[in-house]
Amino acid sequence: MDDGIAIDFGEDGLVPAVAQDAETGDVLMLAYVSPEAFERTRETGRAHYYSRSRDELWEKGTTSGHIQNVEEVRVDCDADTLLYLVDQEGGACHTGYRSCFYRTVEGETVGERVFDPEAVYESGD
Amino acid sequence: MDDGIAIDFGEDGLVPAVAQDAETGDVLMLAYVSPEAFERTRETGRAHYYSRSRDELWEKGTTSGHIQNVEEVRVDCDADTLLYLVDQEGGACHTGYRSCFYRTVEGETVGERVFDPEAVYESGD
Repeated sequence: MDDGIAIDFGEDGLVPAVAQDAETGDVLMLAYVSPEAFERTRETGRAHYYSRSRDELWEKGTTSGHIQNVEEVRVDCDADTLLYLVDQEGGACHTGYRSCFYRTVEGETVGERVFDPEAVYESGD
Repeated sequence: MDDGIAIDFGEDGLVPAVAQDAETGDVLMLAYVSPEAFERTRETGRAHYYSRSRDELWEKGTTSGHIQNVEEVRVDCDADTLLYLVDQEGGACHTGYRSCFYRTVEGETVGERVFDPEAVYESGD
């Protein structure tokens, strides 16, 4: 297909994107994607998202170096959710864990910490 | 912990939940969860969601029989996204595929079809 599947960005212009480790299958994070973030991801092969709190386009890893090289982008049946299959440098989570889903809902830590966030982020947040 | 992690359901009272096959690691679907859907999931061990289009609580598989037994619920760093690790009966997708993410964004079908939706859903939709 020439242009591929048309993504339904809905009323707010954003779709959720799940980032999954292409090698291990671990779900790393969920973030939101604008049309511009989607285009930049496809153009560069690196994961871009849209920060709802900061209201801006965001390339994963520009501060931390923990970039995501996107090996494949999948789309769901309704074309309103994306799945990024990624090669994750370092850790996906700003807390230092490999995955943002490092806790069970009961509060048990099940994830692996792979970096010290205070050493990576100057501001510590 | 007694009550576990407090989920941040935000302004609209919903959080996205990613359903992942607990055995294969495949990402099966993304849907939304209300506080009531979350409670029902934890009480019954079967995945419940909230349908934004139908505006109602929804138990996965009540029509199709393709239920999701939830083995574990994880929560992300911001406590505003859930990960359901599930044992999926049949297929997660109403189109008959095992996963809703059965296509690349270029339009190539990469998923496995596991049932005939016309035979499963009386109305065919």
